[in-house]
Amino acid sequence: MDAIRWSPEELKLLDQTKLPHQQVWETYAEATSIADAIRAMKVRGAPAIGAAGAFAVAIEARRLAGQPDMRERLERAITVLHDARPTAVNLAWALNLMRQLIDETSDEALPVILYNKALQIAEEDVKTNHAIGDYGAQLFNRPTRILTHCNTGALATVGYGTALGIIRSLHHQGKLQHVYVDETRPYLQGARLTAYELADEGIPFDIITDSMAGHFMQQGVVDAVIVGADRVARNGDTANKIGTYTLAVLAHHHEVPFYVAAPMSTIDLDTEKGEDIPIEQRNMEEVTHIFGQAIAPEGATALHPAFDVTPGGLITGIVTERGVVSAPYESTLRSLKNGEANE
Amino acid sequence: MDAIRWSPEELKLLDQTKLPHQQVWETYAEATSIADAIRAMKVRGAPAIGAAGAFAVAIEARRLAGQPDMRERLERAITVLHDARPTAVNLAWALNLMRQLIDETSDEALPVILYNKALQIAEEDVKTNHAIGDYGAQLFNRPTRILTHCNTGALATVGYGTALGIIRSLHHQGKLQHVYVDETRPYLQGARLTAYELADEGIPFDIITDSMAGHFMQQGVVDAVIVGADRVARNGDTANKIGTYTLAVLAHHHEVPFYVAAPMSTIDLDTEKGEDIPIEQRNMEEVTHIFGQAIAPEGATALHPAFDVTPGGLITGIVTERGVVSAPYESTLRSLKNGEANE
Repeated sequence: MDAIRWSPEELKLLDQTKLPHQQVWETYAEATSIADAIRAMKVRGAPAIGAAGAFAVAIEARRLAGQPDMRERLERAITVLHDARPTAVNLAWALNLMRQLIDETSDEALPVILYNKALQIAEEDVKTNHAIGDYGAQLFNRPTRILTHCNTGALATVGYGTALGIIRSLHHQGKLQHVYVDETRPYLQGARLTAYELADEGIPFDIITDSMAGHFMQQGVVDAVIVGADRVARNGDTANKIGTYTLAVLAHHHEVPFYVAAPMSTIDLDTEKGEDIPIEQRNMEEVTHIFGQAIAPEGATALHPAFDVTPGGLITGIVTERGVVSAPYESTLRSLKNGEANE
Repeated sequence: MDAIRWSPEELKLLDQTKLPHQQVWETYAEATSIADAIRAMKVRGAPAIGAAGAFAVAIEARRLAGQPDMRERLERAITVLHDARPTAVNLAWALNLMRQLIDETSDEALPVILYNKALQIAEEDVKTNHAIGDYGAQLFNRPTRILTHCNTGALATVGYGTALGIIRSLHHQGKLQHVYVDETRPYLQGARLTAYELADEGIPFDIITDSMAGHFMQQGVVDAVIVGADRVARNGDTANKIGTYTLAVLAHHHEVPFYVAAPMSTIDLDTEKGEDIPIEQRNMEEVTHIFGQAIAPEGATALHPAFDVTPGGLITGIVTERGVVSAPYESTLRSLKNGEANE
């Protein structure tokens, strides 16, 4: 299963707002239209929008090749892409890598160099997710019941998934008993996307409403919670899809392990703590309407923070492609990142 | 605002599955069709289904008047009504009152006596709710931001409401700053019904998804949580709409007061503890579909416990028409109930 396909001239995105009922691929040949797709959540998931942003820059460079103001226009495109969604750091991370290359590269070589970098980001994401899956699966010895939130699978990444990558690895190793899939209002990524991926792979699951998580933990049928991340701050504070923090508090209360699965590109040592992470506020109509149909009385207002922040203190472990770390995150995350320089 | 109207021959119910977009009143002249309406949640809310059950018995007695097997058929009707929804105790409570009267009353007098009792139950419910509202409002001294769950208002009762009655009283007394309305998946009673009542009265509110409650408590903008109840056991354990327990854990973690508002008829001293309360498991399609439209892939399964149980230990206070009690509930609830005998 995949949701993002590329060539040097075009990016194809599976429109995730239409899943699971319609599988519509759309083709993009300009950076600004890709920024629109990111903003509209046609492509979503921190690693996926990172890769989409990188391809958008490469495609834009090819489109603008030979034009005298190419570099200025490329810089503007990067700004538009950057502003499409503020919370996930992977997009900024990927755009920064592209920007560095632009500075180092001649006009003629830019399209090829940028495309090769985007390709590398995409290919490494899949490898990274398999490594996360393997490290995460080592945390469990026997058939396990996992509760997860949002979609962190092949649709949210370039392939395999982060938290869902661990669930896949557990399944392949015969250590997965059941998955409780939070439907994840308002956008229903759990019911629409995670259920779609799990059904496709024959992994046993049940959808629950987000409000049922506490009840099932109280019943003792949840062995662990595994979620993804949009940004992990230096101290382990983690921004992720709205509802994650509620799960972390519930898991803490029930002494259920709570794991975050994220690639190193999601760990942002430049952000000191959770309060410094910008939380995207989205349109209230995404709460008051479902598939375009109003669920609330006309004129009713709603709030729609798209993310929340879970303090590092509530996180049992953060699973990356370099291994699993625990508190104190200030030191363990820095050690992981320093490993990067040694590679 | 009301959702239940009566005469000796007929019960009229505002079909709550169609709110807020359509206001459709349906007329019922038989107990079994009223049982169907209760099961289908056309009428819902513990106090409202208690009153509807009482009227159903009275209407059935009039319909069967003069028939030789009236008492047997009335008994069967009571059984069907009783089994319509198992968790809320008010229905069983009202049916027990009717059954006692049936035993004491002559055939000829039955329709009038039963109707007068149903009338009394309905009229007392409104008075009860005003008293709950007044006692609850005394808990707060200054403009307060309340988070509530499900619908506990005029639509869930015969009038005014329980938890929403307190919110109404706070508003009338100038002590209400804002209401955070949990949308309350899967049935969306918050977004559909509570928002409808609050908008109608000009009470300031915002709808949030259930998954946002933790985030807003973390932000410090929730001063108290007030919810209703379907059954309060002897030790204070409280069954209420699924998602209530999650809120109680969140409130506990954030040291936010958590109040349950319930009439004495919801307090069931015959039930020792929460584990003894039957939890209704409803159809999974109420989770996988919204307004008849699938939100999950075809064939995906879901779980749908309609209620959960909040331990008394997480409840700051229970607000009844006789006052507010706190732990230890075993003794405080018994004292309240004993007050009944003295009246």
